[in-house]
Amino acid sequence: MNYRRLGRSGLQVSELSIGSWVTYGNQVDRRAARESLAAARDAGVNFFDNAEVYAGGKSEQIMGEALKELNWPRVSYIVSTKFFWGLNEAPNQYHTLNRKYLLNAIDHSLKRLQLDYVDLVFCHRPDPNTPVEETVWAMSDMITRGKALYWGTSEWSADEIRAAYEIAERHHLHKPVMEQPQYNLFHRKRVEQEYRRLYEDIGLGLTTWSPLASGLLTGKYRNGVPAGSRAELQGYDWLRKELTDSGKNSVVGKLGEVADELGCTIGQLALAWILTNPNVSTIITGASRVEQIAENMKAQDIAAQITPELKEKIEAIVGDAYQ
Amino acid sequence: MNYRRLGRSGLQVSELSIGSWVTYGNQVDRRAARESLAAARDAGVNFFDNAEVYAGGKSEQIMGEALKELNWPRVSYIVSTKFFWGLNEAPNQYHTLNRKYLLNAIDHSLKRLQLDYVDLVFCHRPDPNTPVEETVWAMSDMITRGKALYWGTSEWSADEIRAAYEIAERHHLHKPVMEQPQYNLFHRKRVEQEYRRLYEDIGLGLTTWSPLASGLLTGKYRNGVPAGSRAELQGYDWLRKELTDSGKNSVVGKLGEVADELGCTIGQLALAWILTNPNVSTIITGASRVEQIAENMKAQDIAAQITPELKEKIEAIVGDAYQ
Amino acid sequence: MNYRRLGRSGLQVSELSIGSWVTYGNQVDRRAARESLAAARDAGVNFFDNAEVYAGGKSEQIMGEALKELNWPRVSYIVSTKFFWGLNEAPNQYHTLNRKYLLNAIDHSLKRLQLDYVDLVFCHRPDPNTPVEETVWAMSDMITRGKALYWGTSEWSADEIRAAYEIAERHHLHKPVMEQPQYNLFHRKRVEQEYRRLYEDIGLGLTTWSPLASGLLTGKYRNGVPAGSRAELQGYDWLRKELTDSGKNSVVGKLGEVADELGCTIGQLALAWILTNPNVSTIITGASRVEQIAENMKAQDIAAQITPELKEKIEAIVGDAYQ
Amino acid sequence: MNYRRLGRSGLQVSELSIGSWVTYGNQVDRRAARESLAAARDAGVNFFDNAEVYAGGKSEQIMGEALKELNWPRVSYIVSTKFFWGLNEAPNQYHTLNRKYLLNAIDHSLKRLQLDYVDLVFCHRPDPNTPVEETVWAMSDMITRGKALYWGTSEWSADEIRAAYEIAERHHLHKPVMEQPQYNLFHRKRVEQEYRRLYEDIGLGLTTWSPLASGLLTGKYRNGVPAGSRAELQGYDWLRKELTDSGKNSVVGKLGEVADELGCTIGQLALAWILTNPNVSTIITGASRVEQIAENMKAQDIAAQITPELKEKIEAIVGDAYQ
Repeated sequence: MNYRRLGRSGLQVSELSIGSWVTYGNQVDRRAARESLAAARDAGVNFFDNAEVYAGGKSEQIMGEALKELNWPRVSYIVSTKFFWGLNEAPNQYHTLNRKYLLNAIDHSLKRLQLDYVDLVFCHRPDPNTPVEETVWAMSDMITRGKALYWGTSEWSADEIRAAYEIAERHHLHKPVMEQPQYNLFHRKRVEQEYRRLYEDIGLGLTTWSPLASGLLTGKYRNGVPAGSRAELQGYDWLRKELTDSGKNSVVGKLGEVADELGCTIGQLALAWILTNPNVSTIITGASRVEQIAENMKAQDIAAQITPELKEKIEAIVGDAYQ
Repeated sequence: MNYRRLGRSGLQVSELSIGSWVTYGNQVDRRAARESLAAARDAGVNFFDNAEVYAGGKSEQIMGEALKELNWPRVSYIVSTKFFWGLNEAPNQYHTLNRKYLLNAIDHSLKRLQLDYVDLVFCHRPDPNTPVEETVWAMSDMITRGKALYWGTSEWSADEIRAAYEIAERHHLHKPVMEQPQYNLFHRKRVEQEYRRLYEDIGLGLTTWSPLASGLLTGKYRNGVPAGSRAELQGYDWLRKELTDSGKNSVVGKLGEVADELGCTIGQLALAWILTNPNVSTIITGASRVEQIAENMKAQDIAAQITPELKEKIEAIVGDAYQ
Repeated sequence: MNYRRLGRSGLQVSELSIGSWVTYGNQVDRRAARESLAAARDAGVNFFDNAEVYAGGKSEQIMGEALKELNWPRVSYIVSTKFFWGLNEAPNQYHTLNRKYLLNAIDHSLKRLQLDYVDLVFCHRPDPNTPVEETVWAMSDMITRGKALYWGTSEWSADEIRAAYEIAERHHLHKPVMEQPQYNLFHRKRVEQEYRRLYEDIGLGLTTWSPLASGLLTGKYRNGVPAGSRAELQGYDWLRKELTDSGKNSVVGKLGEVADELGCTIGQLALAWILTNPNVSTIITGASRVEQIAENMKAQDIAAQITPELKEKIEAIVGDAYQ
Repeated sequence: MNYRRLGRSGLQVSELSIGSWVTYGNQVDRRAARESLAAARDAGVNFFDNAEVYAGGKSEQIMGEALKELNWPRVSYIVSTKFFWGLNEAPNQYHTLNRKYLLNAIDHSLKRLQLDYVDLVFCHRPDPNTPVEETVWAMSDMITRGKALYWGTSEWSADEIRAAYEIAERHHLHKPVMEQPQYNLFHRKRVEQEYRRLYEDIGLGLTTWSPLASGLLTGKYRNGVPAGSRAELQGYDWLRKELTDSGKNSVVGKLGEVADELGCTIGQLALAWILTNPNVSTIITGASRVEQIAENMKAQDIAAQITPELKEKIEAIVGDAYQ
């Protein structure tokens, strides 16, 4: 496993990491969670991504139980959580980044995770109804109180990230270190264009999500939705349309030819392409099956084979079929 | 129930909230307190106002016991307290905002309230004998130590509020967020004129008190002081004069005609008029009877019916009979 | 008892307070300490001065035991301690204001005093071998950690006090609030000349010591050293010379005539003269006998009788016989 | 024993102190450790240097056990530790100064040392992969949390030290106070040239290591490697070459003549020469035998005999045979 610095911070994260969105608390039961964490660690993964809202808190609870049983030294792994969506549709409990919600949320997350602190804590979305300054103070206070080590954002605009950074700099608070954006061959503008100045100016690190565009980039939707896939789960109707888009699936088909030449899967190619972006600190991958982990890891070898010319070729195949 | 941001902060407060001045520890017993809190919550109220001085500490104690029995999730409600008057007429124990008094007071309030923290903590009055800087440090320290989430002032001058804000900004301390002023149809100058620039400049929120001018705006004093009313309580002689002012009661009579047209009480009209002021975050209402809560809540519907023209008409009725 | 603000702070201290230098742990036993504290409190005294070095720690211990038995509400009284001299003649344990010594010392003082915090903590002397910045951080940290409420200095130069103030202002630390200088009719230059600008510029308060010039201003040394006086104690040889100075005792004799006219003792006149200085927050007086306390308190009445003309007359009597 | 200020700080360190590199946990067993600490203290040594990496944590553990048995007042001695190398060759656990590693490391060190705090905590080497700002925050946080009193660096460049100082100054954090560089007659450039401006500009103190150039300056390698010396230990092959350098051993021979004239050993002369540098706060010496301690202490007397002329003579003997 290769490791990268989380942006300009000193934290080393494995290039590929494990996320529990959808997975834990839904499809994956307790034992499976423990096994996939153990397999990931054996493969060198040291970052396990989580959030308050995943499976309504159950994702944190299951990860907490698994980590307790695995009993690794705390310094050897990195756990995150994220706050914004909340667990109750009530004022100050959802869709907010106000001080009351955040300071309440971290305590409950730590209890579910059975940890003294998380390594990374994210603002899961921007909140237009809370001043950035209030949020920065609360996030920084989590670090001061020893409940988190680093904080960052997820799906914030470049302007909002910079505002947070500058407010923290001015008031001598802990600054945001990382952002968790969607990033894959079909979703690139924010990472490649909007954030462009932030990498150099503030040393922003990226922990990217949806590297396979919800599975679209595995190629398995080229012939419609297969049985048992995530797009068939209740509440994921919005995914089905996206995943069966014929234009995109045609691109996926052509990427399949490149993958064949490299002797890898389309998914491995898609991951490898992300790894060629030096601003990406780690790719958060799913892990509903233990074998997936090993498969994904091979993307590191493929990345080493992606020459500038090949990269150009891949991006030419995608054309402007991305946002 | 509608909710509003507490000024520019991210905290959402119900437009109508419940105060315990006079009420708890005096007229209302323990069970009644619990029932009125529960009824208010059922109506969507999420903010319960309190102060050290109310009923000499008993108001906090009774609210604390009620909250403990009700056992709501802590994140779901907002409790305040306020310091200045003190409980003992002795140096450093009353009429002060010095560090010694404030840091002692918050610990005792939290004990009476049986809470780990209050959401809002107010300086109940300005203290000319303590530098604003000393008070700002002590209030900010309460937040740093996790004993409060937001702090503000009550009946401070605009100049004093801005001084506190600027000192906190300069020394990177927690800034004041809200002010609790008297505000009703007969008491408007501070909120509408003196504080005017503060809403935009520092994002000041308002938690207003005495919306019915101690009952004058219910109309029940149009024919003198009825038996059992607050104006008959010991120690409230000063109120009697104000409440039986003939000029004001004549205004109240004319407001009664407007209320009749809208199909509401004078009190509901008076509350609705306050709600039309967007700088008001929440109106603190009394709650000596459970039914009062439901009645007051109807003011939200009435507020929706107050057109700019109707607002002008109401204010023309009051004329210059206000301070 | 009258109260004054401690400089520009909001803390109210009694004009006359009780110090335990020499007294506790030496001449005064446990019960006597408790009785003199109780008598002082009955007379309205709210400030009890102490220091680590007084009687080698025993003065704090005896005061702590007395306070525990008296069991007054903590908010109702003010206790101080002071650090510099240390209890052991070893590096980092005496004659220093370095971080290691100070943070160790406060913990031991609080243990001896059986208190969670002292109200006032003083740097007992300046330390030329520690940067003022290091001392300011350590003193400020005591306040941040809740072990003290206000900090100050004793016998620092005006330049050193201002340095401490400015460093704290620049680094957003808790600033020094008070100074404890020697001040009496024979010792005036520092308070009246050297510190002159500090009262207005930084709001410095004074808790003055040796108001009777070690007893010289009681008049009891006019005819040599009486048996049983402090000047006869072991280790106080240096005092004897000062107390039997014939020039000063002649001044004392003339002050006695003024005192006679006012119907008070020379000591009461000397205390009253100090009270006419508005920059003095409190005069620390000794209390080896309970009756002394009541006697000293009468100085407040005498102070009210000292007109500007009488003050001029008193100071003319002293002439230039002071430092 | 003479004491010096640790740079411009107020901390007094003995001119000669005891280090446990190599020693504890390897050659020296538990009882011997306790005896050498006791002998050093009897000789006036008040600083005992340590590091996480020494003997893989065992050096801290043995020192902790010895200190516990000796049961000296905590204020009377100074203990250090250092972080960078780490105990496990895994990401975020070695060769790093990131926040995660540092905050984890201090807790484990304190547990091994059985202490509430260390006096001095060092960054054992610079880490090019962590921003200085991240490290400064973490080191400062250790002090804020009461886990250390002063922090510094070891073998950092002048530029890195100044960067740390300025970042701390700008963000009002605890500043670095000392550096632990190698310094002896054969290794002088960093201390004498590179750091030159830092002594005055930021008041840097030095706790120097390897005063005898790993034994070369004792003269015992003039005839090859004697049996049982450190150069014969496993893993110290790199030392053997350095220690048997014929040019340097010829210099050592000539120094022996100077030592003879002064009536001291070459080692004592080498220590005494270091003491003539006023920028050195303390020399860390080894202590595998109790008698060594007494022998080393004599260097203070020799230092008093090194006139400017004699110092020039010594340095002329070394010539340019140093780095």
